[in-house]
This record gives sequence, C-alpha cells and structure tokens, in this order.
Amino acid sequence: MQEIRKKALERVSAQCKVCPVCNGIVCAGKIPGMGGIGSGISFQNNINALARHHLVLRTLHQANEPDTKTSLWGREMALPVMAAPVGSVALNLGSDMSDVDYTRLALRGCRAAQTLAGIGDLPDKAGFQQYMDVVGDDGAIAVPFIKPWVNMAEITARMDMAAAAGVGICGMDVDGAGPPTMRKLVSPVGVTPPAKLEKIVGEAHRRGMKFIVKGIMAPDEAVIAADAGADALVVSNHGGRVLDGAPGSAEVLPSIAGIAGGRLVVMMDGGIRSGVDVLKALALGAQFVLICRPVMIAVHGDEEHGVSTYFAQIRDQLVQAMRLTGCANLSAISGRVLC
Amino acid sequence: MQEIRKKALERVSAQCKVCPVCNGIVCAGKIPGMGGIGSGISFQNNINALARHHLVLRTLHQANEPDTKTSLWGREMALPVMAAPVGSVALNLGSDMSDVDYTRLALRGCRAAQTLAGIGDLPDKAGFQQYMDVVGDDGAIAVPFIKPWVNMAEITARMDMAAAAGVGICGMDVDGAGPPTMRKLVSPVGVTPPAKLEKIVGEAHRRGMKFIVKGIMAPDEAVIAADAGADALVVSNHGGRVLDGAPGSAEVLPSIAGIAGGRLVVMMDGGIRSGVDVLKALALGAQFVLICRPVMIAVHGDEEHGVSTYFAQIRDQLVQAMRLTGCANLSAISGRVLC
Amino acid sequence: MQEIRKKALERVSAQCKVCPVCNGIVCAGKIPGMGGIGSGISFQNNINALARHHLVLRTLHQANEPDTKTSLWGREMALPVMAAPVGSVALNLGSDMSDVDYTRLALRGCRAAQTLAGIGDLPDKAGFQQYMDVVGDDGAIAVPFIKPWVNMAEITARMDMAAAAGVGICGMDVDGAGPPTMRKLVSPVGVTPPAKLEKIVGEAHRRGMKFIVKGIMAPDEAVIAADAGADALVVSNHGGRVLDGAPGSAEVLPSIAGIAGGRLVVMMDGGIRSGVDVLKALALGAQFVLICRPVMIAVHGDEEHGVSTYFAQIRDQLVQAMRLTGCANLSAISGRVLC
Amino acid sequence: MQEIRKKALERVSAQCKVCPVCNGIVCAGKIPGMGGIGSGISFQNNINALARHHLVLRTLHQANEPDTKTSLWGREMALPVMAAPVGSVALNLGSDMSDVDYTRLALRGCRAAQTLAGIGDLPDKAGFQQYMDVVGDDGAIAVPFIKPWVNMAEITARMDMAAAAGVGICGMDVDGAGPPTMRKLVSPVGVTPPAKLEKIVGEAHRRGMKFIVKGIMAPDEAVIAADAGADALVVSNHGGRVLDGAPGSAEVLPSIAGIAGGRLVVMMDGGIRSGVDVLKALALGAQFVLICRPVMIAVHGDEEHGVSTYFAQIRDQLVQAMRLTGCANLSAISGRVLC
Repeated sequence: MQEIRKKALERVSAQCKVCPVCNGIVCAGKIPGMGGIGSGISFQNNINALARHHLVLRTLHQANEPDTKTSLWGREMALPVMAAPVGSVALNLGSDMSDVDYTRLALRGCRAAQTLAGIGDLPDKAGFQQYMDVVGDDGAIAVPFIKPWVNMAEITARMDMAAAAGVGICGMDVDGAGPPTMRKLVSPVGVTPPAKLEKIVGEAHRRGMKFIVKGIMAPDEAVIAADAGADALVVSNHGGRVLDGAPGSAEVLPSIAGIAGGRLVVMMDGGIRSGVDVLKALALGAQFVLICRPVMIAVHGDEEHGVSTYFAQIRDQLVQAMRLTGCANLSAISGRVLC
Repeated sequence: MQEIRKKALERVSAQCKVCPVCNGIVCAGKIPGMGGIGSGISFQNNINALARHHLVLRTLHQANEPDTKTSLWGREMALPVMAAPVGSVALNLGSDMSDVDYTRLALRGCRAAQTLAGIGDLPDKAGFQQYMDVVGDDGAIAVPFIKPWVNMAEITARMDMAAAAGVGICGMDVDGAGPPTMRKLVSPVGVTPPAKLEKIVGEAHRRGMKFIVKGIMAPDEAVIAADAGADALVVSNHGGRVLDGAPGSAEVLPSIAGIAGGRLVVMMDGGIRSGVDVLKALALGAQFVLICRPVMIAVHGDEEHGVSTYFAQIRDQLVQAMRLTGCANLSAISGRVLC
Repeated sequence: MQEIRKKALERVSAQCKVCPVCNGIVCAGKIPGMGGIGSGISFQNNINALARHHLVLRTLHQANEPDTKTSLWGREMALPVMAAPVGSVALNLGSDMSDVDYTRLALRGCRAAQTLAGIGDLPDKAGFQQYMDVVGDDGAIAVPFIKPWVNMAEITARMDMAAAAGVGICGMDVDGAGPPTMRKLVSPVGVTPPAKLEKIVGEAHRRGMKFIVKGIMAPDEAVIAADAGADALVVSNHGGRVLDGAPGSAEVLPSIAGIAGGRLVVMMDGGIRSGVDVLKALALGAQFVLICRPVMIAVHGDEEHGVSTYFAQIRDQLVQAMRLTGCANLSAISGRVLC
Repeated sequence: MQEIRKKALERVSAQCKVCPVCNGIVCAGKIPGMGGIGSGISFQNNINALARHHLVLRTLHQANEPDTKTSLWGREMALPVMAAPVGSVALNLGSDMSDVDYTRLALRGCRAAQTLAGIGDLPDKAGFQQYMDVVGDDGAIAVPFIKPWVNMAEITARMDMAAAAGVGICGMDVDGAGPPTMRKLVSPVGVTPPAKLEKIVGEAHRRGMKFIVKGIMAPDEAVIAADAGADALVVSNHGGRVLDGAPGSAEVLPSIAGIAGGRLVVMMDGGIRSGVDVLKALALGAQFVLICRPVMIAVHGDEEHGVSTYFAQIRDQLVQAMRLTGCANLSAISGRVLC
C-alpha cells in the first residue's frame, strides 16, 4: 500500500496530500478538492465519531479464523464493503483521469475484491449512459446512485439505462439536493418529498431493481425511507461536503439502526479507513459500509490492482480485529466489542 | 469573497491577518486590535459555542426553496441580520479609513443587502452627529447604539440627534461600561442601574424610537431589560473585548431566550461567520443576529459592494442550510435542526 | 508592564521565557527552573482549573465603583493578595539576584501596593535571619513561611527570629515535605503529623503571631489544620513543583472552602495571573490569593516598582471585572458570578 | 538518567527518538518500530488513561518514610515492578543488540534492582532455550512469557525448558494471537479457548510453576483466567501493538480488579513511566506493574546499570509520591489517593 499511496500522491498532489491519516484537516474547506465544506468539520466529524469508540481486546475464545463473507439480496461478497459512488474525479482530485476511466477501474477492482461498486451520476443522461456502458457483465455488483433530480423523467430515464445494463441494485443520494452548481442546471436537483421517494422506489422495483436511499442522518428520515419501501439506506453526510456542521455518520448510526434496522438494510458511509473502522461500524449497527476517499487514492495509485490491494488490506485488518475481539463471523459482531 | 478578503488583508494586515477562520486565536489579547481582551478566550468562546452544535441533515421533505425574509417592527428585511455597530476602525484595524467613512460604506452595503445597519457612538456628541449626518434617508435601517454614559444628558442629546435623522430604532451597548479609556473621559461611561435603564427606554419611546439593549449575558438581566420596557435585547459579550473569561453568546442564548423570548425580541451577537452559524443561532432561540468582524473585513475589501457580496454569501449559505435541514422559512427553524 | 516583562526576559531568559501566558508549558519539568515537576501537569492544572470557569457579564446594576479593599486580622490591604514566598531565585530563574535582594525588593513592592508579602525559608537559620533583617519596620505585612523541619527546634528558632523582627503572621508550607535535596540535609524536612502541627500553631500563638498552613489540597487535611488551631490555610499544590499529577488548586478549592471556610481563613495559591483570576478564586471560596511567578518576573523587570506596577494592573483588572459582574465590594463576590 | 537517555538515543535513533515523554505520538503506527499499531491510539490511550487521574496531595500525617517493598509467592522484591518481556529488539529499536544480550542485561539489571524480569519467546524452541540459558541462578526472578502457540506441544516443551532452568513463575501473553507474521509460521500462534487455557495452567502447575495470563482487557476474560486456575493476570493491550482502537490499560483496570482481584493477583502493563504512574496503577487496583519501553531505553543507555538506575529513579519517585499522598506502605495505597 505504501507504494500505491506514493504513486497516487504524484498524480493528485494538487488537491490531495494523501495524508498518513485521511482525516479532513489538511484539505478543510477545499471544494472543489477533497475536503469538507466550509470549516471542514463535517468531514472531520466522520473520523472523530469512529475514533471515539474503542474495542474490547479478547483472546480467550474459539474465533481463531474469522469469516468476513456476507451476501446482499443473493449476491455473495467477500467483505461487507461497497466502493462509494464518486464523480468529478478530475476536478476534485486534480487528476488527469476521466470519470469514465475512474469508474471502469474502480468497478474492476471491486470485482476482483468481491465487493460492490457504487457508480455516480452526471447532469446529462449521455454521461450516465457512458457509466452504464462500462458496467458490462458486472451488473450484479454495479450500484449506480442517481442524483435527486427534480424532474422525475430524468430519474426514470436513468433507471431504464441501468436496468438495460443488467444492474440489479440502484440508489439515490438524496442528500445531494443542494450544491448551487447543480441547482442552476436546466434540470436541477432538489429535496425529495416522501411521496416522491415512494414513487421513485416503485419505479426501481418495477424494473426489478433493489433501491438504496443514501444520505440519511435523522431517525425520522430513516422511517420515511422505510415507509417508502426502500430496501436499504445509507447513513451518510455526503463525506461532509454538503452541510457544514453536520455530525459524523457513526454518531447517528446507532439511533437509525435502532429505529429502522428491522425494516431495511442499514449501511454506513463516512470515515471508514481500515478494517478496524469496518468492525466499529458493524458493531454500531451497520450491515455494510461504503468507502470513498481511500478507494480514489487506490485507483490513482495502481488502477484496479490498487483497489483490490486496498480491499485485501481491509480484509486482513478486519480478520485480525475480529480475531482479537472474539467474532467468528460478521453476525457475531455486536455492541459487546465496543467500549 | 476570496478577492475581497485579499484586498482587505492589504489594508488591515498590521492588526488583522484575515484568517481563513476568524476565531480570535492569532489576535488573542490584542486591544487595540481585533482580538479578545486578556487571554482572548471570550472571543474564542463565541466561536466554540456555535461550533459545539451540529445540524441534522434532512432532505426528505418539501422545503426546496427556503425563504430567508423577515421583518422587524414593520421593516422588511432580506435576512435576519444586522451589521454590528463598530468604532475606532483606524485604531483597531490599523486601517486608513475614518470611522465616518466606514459607517457610510457599511450602511450603504446593508441597504443594498436589505439588512439593518448598526452604528457606533463616540465620546463627543459632534462625532455622533457626524454619524447621524451619514444616515441620510436610511433612517429606517440605521440603528445607532449609544454608549452607557453616566450623564443622562449625554444620552438624550444623542437620541435627539438620532430622531432628527429619521432613525426609528436605537439601542445601547450596556456592556460598554468598562474600558479604562472611556472611564477617564469628562463624561464617562458606567453601569446602568435598572431604574436608569427604564428611564432611557422611556426617552427613546417618547421620541418614537424602538429600543434595543445590547450586552445581555444573564437571564436575570434579560428580565431587567424586559421589565424596563426594552423592545429587544442582544445577547453579546461585546465580541469578547470587555471581560476576559466570559462564555460564548451561544452558550447563554437558550436560557435567555427561554426566559425573555416571549416579552421582547431576542438577538444574538458573537461569532457569526456563515449562514450555517445564522441557522444555529436562530435554532438556539435568536430572531436576529449581529455580525461584526466579517463586515469590517468586507468594507475594507470592497467598500459597500464588499458588504453586499458578503451578505449575499450569507444568504446563499443560509438558504442551502435551511434546505438541507428542512426549514421552508425562518419560523420553521427550531431546536429540531440541532444535535 | 510590557516594558517590565521585556527587561525581565533579559535577566531570566536562561530559565524562563516570560511567556505571553505563564502556563507551565514551555518550562514543563524544568526543576531547577520555573516549571512543574515531571510532566509539568500539576502546574498546568493550576492554570486550566481557573480557565475552566467563566464569568457572567452583568451591567444592569449599581456597582459602578467597586472597592477592592480588605483587611486581615486588623491589617488594612488594598487588595486580597499576597506575594507568595519564594527561594532559590538565582537557581530557578537563572538570575543574578540574591535571595535576600529579591526578598527586599518584593517586600518593598508589596508595601507600595498595600498587600502582604510572603517570605521564604532557608536550610540554615542564619539565612532565615537575613530575611528577617530585611523586614525592618514592615513586620505588619511580612509573612515568613517556615519549612516543615523534622526537628522542632529548627522551627521555634525561626519563630523567635520572626517575632523579634515584629512579624505578626507566619506560616508553614507543609507541602514542602519532599524534595530529595531538602531531605538529605543535617536537619531535613518531613511530613507534619496532626499533633505536631497543633504544637507548631501553639508556638506561633504563644509568640503573638497568627499562623497559616500552606499546601492543603484535601478537605480532610483542611479539617486537620482547623482542628490544630491554624488561623488560615492556603490551598496550594506548591506551584506544581512537588507532586506530578496533582489537580489544580481551583479544582479542590470549593470543597475545602465548604468544609473549613467557617473555621479559618481560606487562601488560594496557584495559577493566579490577572484580576479576573483573583475574582474567580474569590468566587470559588477563597478570601485571599497568593501570586508567585508573575511577582518574580515583576521584580526582575523593575525591582520594587515592577511589583507595584504589576499589582496596580491586578487592581485595575479586578475593579473592571467586579464592575462587569456586578460586585460592589469583595464580600459581594460569590458563585453567582461564575458559569 | 539524562546521560543514559542520551547514550540510548545514539543507538536506537533509527526507530525511537527517546522522547522527553514516551507517549506514542512520534512513533505512531511504526511497527516494526516502537509505535502502536495503525493510528497508534492504543499506545497513546495507555498514557492518557493514567494521565487522566490526579493525586490528592496530603502532608499532615505520619508516613514520612514510605516502604516500597513487597513479595510475590515468597519472593521478596524492592518494588512492585516487573520488566516486561520483549522480543525482536534489533528489529523494533533498530539497535545492534541481540535479543539474547538484551535479555541478559535486563535480567541482571532487575536482579540489582530486586524486581522481577519478564523474558520473551521466539518462534523456534532453540531460541527460547537460549533465553533459558541466560537465566542462570536467577530462576527466582526470571518470568518467561510463552506465546499462545496453537500447538500445545510447543507450549509444554518451553515449560520443560523453563522448569529445568529453575524458573518458578511463567506466563503467556494470550493477546499475542494475531500478528500475520506469527500466523504464517509452521507452528502458528492463535487465540486460546478457555478449556485450553485451563490445560496450560495445569501444565505449569504440574511443573511447580506459578502461571500469569498476560493480555486481559475485559472483565469476562478475567473471570475465565481465574476459572482456569491462573495465579495472576496482567491487564495489558500489548503496548498498543496488536489492536488499533483499544482502550488504555488503566481504563479497564478498576473493573477487572473489582471482579477478579480477590481470586488472583492483578498486574498492569501499559504506559507506566514514573513512580507516580506506579502509585496510580496501584491505587486503581493493580498489585504489580510491568514496564517495557523505558527499560529498553535504559538497557541501550547503560546496559544492566541503566536498568538499575532507572528502577532506582522509579523507587525515589514512588517514595516521594507515597510520602506526599500519605501512604506508609504499598498496602496503604487505595483509591483515596486519587481524584
């Protein structure tokens, strides 16, 4: 990984310093760039909310060979991890890589690592189609997240493209309702009233796709997502990039998992850097986690191989952390490992 | 704003470094200068007290086009914001701008931004008259704050000048009772006993002006202000410049709003830098906020246009923050947006 | 004061950097030197314990001309302040000033400022006699603190010298029980069993002197001091110089004042730098405070005039802080000013 | 000690900076090296957990000459301290010293200081035998800690060697279950199921040795250790080197001492640097402490004499801390000294 990080730094140093710990301090407020919005505290809160929790070291048990495998709606996965959807790679990382190339490499890396691969959206439908063209025969692991377009037709058109590409799971980052640039478009983004969300979920289901609502930070909105029929939600503050002063995802995760965990799959996004972080998120109530910035670094450091190398490290760390906390498999992970 | 801040730095760098986040650390203890008194902690507490609160991100609702308009005693305003009264600009900022010029530019900027403009006071009445000469036909938005002169005649003379200039709202920064320099004047400042405050409010009302008490940090003094008939109070520690070791305004705001909010208008001053801060202050119980240092920077960066540009940014940030917390208008803002 | 501090720095820079805020960070662990022992945290805790308390700004009251005068056992004082006893000035400050010269200058400065002047002790009685020779006709304000010598005769001999010099108040820093150098002397220091303390107090009283026990940090030891008949105690961790990991004086002051305040005079030593600190200490239950390091700086910056200038600043700050918290005199200071 | 630390720095500077306070910040994440794993926070938590506790200064009592002597299962000791077992000195410290030489010097230093000396383990039994060859006639103070080998025969073979060398106490660092390098060996390490632990303890007892379980961080595992018949346990997170995000030993010590203190001897390892730290650990419920990194520095600074000098310093600090907290002997140390 050291080698991969070094190579990545050469390509992205204009916007990202590939810090030893990716914590949002150096890049605070840099958008475009990799930082959190404004003071940058929403990004930093993601890191701090996880760091606040400690793990109970236990070694007097049987869990010597922990198993990290899981499945989601019939798909087998080596890890409870999804690469987060990203866009505007060139703009934000100052890299020479096109979004389509990025998407292709991230997807291939996720295939090799047997994880899911989130895919972003673009203002013009043609751009989204390019992403779908990349999917190829990876429809089973590709998870496109459509923007919360005010115009419903923009959404259903993208769903058609996704379904045609063999995609089985799609989602929407409803917290992407705000950026001024995205609101001045011919077809802007906006907030998503509950009734509209229900309609959107129905459109996905009608096309045979599961639907994930990304960007839930309040228990009451988790209930709205569940009531709308969503199959999963992602606790996320959008990497701290839309609202300054938001709490970290891990802070609100337990209450959201508590109220909605029995009704839909709960995922968490924000601040996951290592296998220890994955363990913490699962102990706090998530079933899956999304990882964003480290995957971007990995793609720039060694393309698809960078991604699979990074996920292999995540897996090694997760196995070791499960062994030293006494968890034989993912379902054995609970609040008991935290202190 | 980057351009404006850069230009401002050229003019004020002797006393103010126009820091990325204006938080009272670099300038701690520098009076004259822009810092807080002594250790500087009273200024820093203003920032920290707001930073301690986080916002609940919500996007599953109807509030896509939030409205930031409000009104105060019949005056329509684009924002619940007032530029804070300031004095001794040259001394404190090391700038080449006269206080009268500063006042004129700030006032014009506020007019363009449709906000209120606080105006300062001076030891000699002639100076105050110069401020009133600047008011012109902006009496509806100009809000002079008279110092707490021990001699009542000093106060009523200024009220006469303000009323003659068409001013409809005046106030007093009662917390300006202390600075040694102001206490060695022929007519010094001092504390304001409740009975005197009642008389002062009566004098303002007799001249047809609403009256604001600025510098309330204790619930019991909020009750005194209300009992005295004041129309509004400003929770403020005077920018941390009069008493070392004072708490931040946002720390004491909720208890003051709780006890006096039903009797007079509650405003808050201290540490407001962005639209997110405005939202937090309103959620904590304020109806209006005052902004000081950033307006001073804006005036030095691009005169009246700097002010209107800064307030436009505040409005954009407030709109975005209201959208992402589900507040369609200012009255929809409540403690529910905080966590 | 800026000038005084600058001059002091020239004389003491080998051991003390005359930091903007004297907080024990730069000098941590430097003994000899000005720092706290070991990690230096005991010194820093003194500062932090005071900083943790904030003051309620109040200006709607009558206390425009606060009075800082007080008296102790018939002695009138301009301030509730005593210069702390110090020794080994040359060694600890790296200065060229003899302890006797230091003592003379500090005493004169305290006389000018109408405060009390603590005076240190030395291993040999002849040294202590030199201090007493300095007292001259200032017996009413000179307060020698005798070390806790294991040999009772060492103590009574010094009491005789003090009484002969016209001293009316003496004390003992019982927390000076430990330093290895002081324990290897022919006549070493040691802890003070309750029965011995009672005897010591009796010896002082028999010679017509009031007696202060300095170095109380536990409520149960405050009760022992009161039971022994002491007239006052000083809450002190010896400037953080004897035990690493001790709490700050202001942390334990309230519980000690609560249990013993009605039986003897409670004083506090540790971390007092400004008039605001004096106000906080009094609000936390002290009737008098001792100040050490800033007085040492003042003596080195401008001899006795440095001390009186520093105490004048303390008085101005205390007056201003009392005015802005609504305290007309020292007895009006209570927990109500804290938040 | 200054001289010893200076010499040590010359030998180990490639991996260790011999920081004024050894707190895991500079070396965070450096393994091989002296740091904690990953973020390094598990190491730092050891330091912080002790620093959080403060000591009550008391000097009005009889404990002028505190006694630090203790005994363990019949062995007299000058201090309640054991040098922690270490391995891979050359790799981790970047030193030119062999593990066998290190072990010999540490053992001799402990003998001189009248403490116990922990001894490490190696993947090949021949290496372990070399350690046992070093023991000589110090079997009474040598305490080898065997790794948690999956293969029971590896364990009993080492016990045979230890018993043959006259060792009376052995142990196992059960938390050493994880490092990938140690898991790829022909005979790897692993977790220790309770039934296996019971068997291991039995094997030790059958050979006439007391048995210590090192690496307990959860009360339930303390009960398992006691149920298995262990004679002592060591609260330890392995110096923060096996699991990122573990709490500090001193955080969990009180609950472990509370539940198991009556059944076996409770020791603590992690973050002990000074005699004040020893006092804190004992006040939190430990009867003995292990010290690791400072002993490594001492060995590199002045071989066996470095160790005895370091332990003499620990003793002086402990005596002084006991005197200033009123503890005449180790059994007088209780939670009463903490605040």
